[in-house]
Amino acid sequence: MTTFRATILTLYPEMFPGHLGFSLSGKAMERGDWSLDTVQIRDFAEDKHRTVDDTPAGGGAGMVLKPDILAKAIDSVAADTRPRLLMSPRGRPLTQKRVRELADGEGVVIVCGRFEGIDQRVIDGRNLEEVSIGDYILSGGEPAALTVLDSVIRLLPGVMGNVHSGTNESFEHGLLEHPHYTRPQVFEGEEIPAVLTSGNHAAIEKWRLEKALRLTGERRPDLLTDD
Amino acid sequence: MTTFRATILTLYPEMFPGHLGFSLSGKAMERGDWSLDTVQIRDFAEDKHRTVDDTPAGGGAGMVLKPDILAKAIDSVAADTRPRLLMSPRGRPLTQKRVRELADGEGVVIVCGRFEGIDQRVIDGRNLEEVSIGDYILSGGEPAALTVLDSVIRLLPGVMGNVHSGTNESFEHGLLEHPHYTRPQVFEGEEIPAVLTSGNHAAIEKWRLEKALRLTGERRPDLLTDD
Repeated sequence: MTTFRATILTLYPEMFPGHLGFSLSGKAMERGDWSLDTVQIRDFAEDKHRTVDDTPAGGGAGMVLKPDILAKAIDSVAADTRPRLLMSPRGRPLTQKRVRELADGEGVVIVCGRFEGIDQRVIDGRNLEEVSIGDYILSGGEPAALTVLDSVIRLLPGVMGNVHSGTNESFEHGLLEHPHYTRPQVFEGEEIPAVLTSGNHAAIEKWRLEKALRLTGERRPDLLTDD
Repeated sequence: MTTFRATILTLYPEMFPGHLGFSLSGKAMERGDWSLDTVQIRDFAEDKHRTVDDTPAGGGAGMVLKPDILAKAIDSVAADTRPRLLMSPRGRPLTQKRVRELADGEGVVIVCGRFEGIDQRVIDGRNLEEVSIGDYILSGGEPAALTVLDSVIRLLPGVMGNVHSGTNESFEHGLLEHPHYTRPQVFEGEEIPAVLTSGNHAAIEKWRLEKALRLTGERRPDLLTDD
């Protein structure tokens, strides 16, 4: 059993492991299924104020993370073949396919941006893969990094155990998942759809596929037309 | 100054406030700009094993959160006009527009799913707004809820202070953001693009817009063709 190794470069190492310290991911960490270490970017600043940012060339609001400082922080991580992600709203959207690829690897190095952004020269020079978790703005890369790790950790061997197959889910087949029902048979006057308690497995599969298709068409027509 | 009130229904209240307890959001919580309370869904189970889930009607992997238990947990939250979100990969994708709407409101109630899913009858019966933070699967709704809250909290009055305008960012204008640069002037042989240090503000704006358009076209053509 190998350990999936996550290294996080951040100005807020105290945010980790955060929610990942509990439940499935917390137990998996205790078992050694994955490990986490953090690198404080500020430790690589060289002036007495430990400055890591500067004003943007060309003007504008906010501050930009300096390329020289961040490059040193990145270079302090032992050279290996782990992908280096930069969490950024400018990145390519995270997909379940990319999550699976990451989970199949030996680990990940994640750079968490803060401020207005990161100098483009260090993104290029250190070959950072810009990844976005969605079309909204966060306070920094840390919440995004924790989200990526959560999605990856649950797919590591042994983490889900027999809890869940992990395969019959939204996106795994390119569709949103069908509705779920469980006991009680009647809840506030509403019954479980009769087909689901019919014992007719072919009819159940057909019903579920139809519901998944309809839901996807209503909420995510992009999933039906892409590819 | 009103307080933005977040109430989280979860089986893992220990995951909160998580990373939100630090940095901007942590300080904002201390100041009373926002508040967080959690409701343990399991407290509403009635059998001695405190069971909250049951097998899916119609068969299949995983377990489904029981509608009667979750309904009681939801009904324990004082009736008010806050939107009730259900974090779910089946939901409509979170957008910066929805984040702004939430930040303009008095707060939010967020239900965190776990297991295979939640009984559809309680989603319908309690008018839960299903929201997805992206096209990947998480261990449960908790990482998603923390992500939504992070995006909302940074927009609350006073939270960003003068740190940042919060307006000239990816998605705010429907484009990914242009590249950033800061000192040093030369980093590993690469200079800051000359236009940015030219002092010609019109040329800088034109360069940034062209870069933003090109980047968006390369990575997110969907943002250019939609709407």
